[in-house]
Amino acid sequence: MPMKVSVIIPAAGQGRRMEAGVSKQFLLLGGEPILKRTLEVFLNEPSVSAVTLVVPEADVEAVSGEFGGGRGKLSEVVAGGKERQDSVHNGLKSLSADTDVVLVHDGVRPFVTPQMIRAAARAALDHGAAVAAIPVNDTLKRVDARGVIDGGVSREGLWRMQTPQAFRYPLLLRAFDKARQDGFYGTDEVSLVERLGQEVFVVAGAESNIKITRPEDLALAEILLVARS
Amino acid sequence: MPMKVSVIIPAAGQGRRMEAGVSKQFLLLGGEPILKRTLEVFLNEPSVSAVTLVVPEADVEAVSGEFGGGRGKLSEVVAGGKERQDSVHNGLKSLSADTDVVLVHDGVRPFVTPQMIRAAARAALDHGAAVAAIPVNDTLKRVDARGVIDGGVSREGLWRMQTPQAFRYPLLLRAFDKARQDGFYGTDEVSLVERLGQEVFVVAGAESNIKITRPEDLALAEILLVARS
Repeated sequence: MPMKVSVIIPAAGQGRRMEAGVSKQFLLLGGEPILKRTLEVFLNEPSVSAVTLVVPEADVEAVSGEFGGGRGKLSEVVAGGKERQDSVHNGLKSLSADTDVVLVHDGVRPFVTPQMIRAAARAALDHGAAVAAIPVNDTLKRVDARGVIDGGVSREGLWRMQTPQAFRYPLLLRAFDKARQDGFYGTDEVSLVERLGQEVFVVAGAESNIKITRPEDLALAEILLVARS
Repeated sequence: MPMKVSVIIPAAGQGRRMEAGVSKQFLLLGGEPILKRTLEVFLNEPSVSAVTLVVPEADVEAVSGEFGGGRGKLSEVVAGGKERQDSVHNGLKSLSADTDVVLVHDGVRPFVTPQMIRAAARAALDHGAAVAAIPVNDTLKRVDARGVIDGGVSREGLWRMQTPQAFRYPLLLRAFDKARQDGFYGTDEVSLVERLGQEVFVVAGAESNIKITRPEDLALAEILLVARS
């Protein structure tokens, strides 16, 4: 059975860690806005039916014009809300009712691969919820405000969460409803569906699937981009 | 006061995760053995007085011949022991008694920088013990054997340990003595000095200071190498 996969890309943040005058999602990576590069991966993936970009209200018109015409797929550009969770919720409301699976993917993770997209969508269809992730390979320690190590944390079974995060559409709607009822704000969508008692499966992310939030991330991204081409 | 800084580079592991017929430290990175590239950074750093390589017993002669003549600095190539800790201990015994600070650095972390070396040595002289590390920026979750998320771990104050790890020489000797008396084996040297009640300070590592242990790490290392030159 073919499934209808819709994607929400929240990119409404202000990127205060980037020390630049422009929001991080619009910074240039290899001459193109980071957000446009992220979007392209989903537009080029045949298993994806629709993509909704969520951007700052002031940018909706410009983004619609510049990034539009996406091979019939870029259905919506909508305005973000106060928090990331509000922005994803705005995106969620824009999806067509026959959506089977929703992927939520950071606008500033342009190195997502077709394999990750398909694996996350498939696992969400099979199990309800899935997230791209990679195992922790480093020794982890807690460090206090003075810069002194203050105890350790076992890395056994610990994974680093990435995106895409993927969910059956009705499940994610219920999770957002419950969060709103409870006034709950989570760090990501996984934290919302976990509150329903839903199991969330990990699928293979990659070290290279970096989130570009600091100047040094952008430098690494430029390197990765050159290596890809 | 100038300090005498000696470096121990343990590289006696078998690298079973690398799926190659040769130990990981001798794999080629940009046409040179990884271990040789790591060694070069320390040989080129003026604040470093001596370097001891610890390699598998069978490789001592070959490494002495091929990597030797290191601008008068490569004082020793010694044979490793059963575990990493035994190998570092063997290296420790080779140091001259007037050493002030000992740095221990993974043979398969060739992207260590002069800044990291100096910061770790300085902090060890000032405080006794220091380690290069970077803050955790990802959401961390525990994942069970089925691949299902099973609880989270706050990343607040969590850091990923790297090397160099640096210590005042007498302190590290005492830490090894105590570990031997107690039959204790730790994951690294920090875990040994912590047992003495010693405070360990973090200094700035870098995302690029990767440990090459898996095939995908080597691929990333080739990219980083190109970007550097």
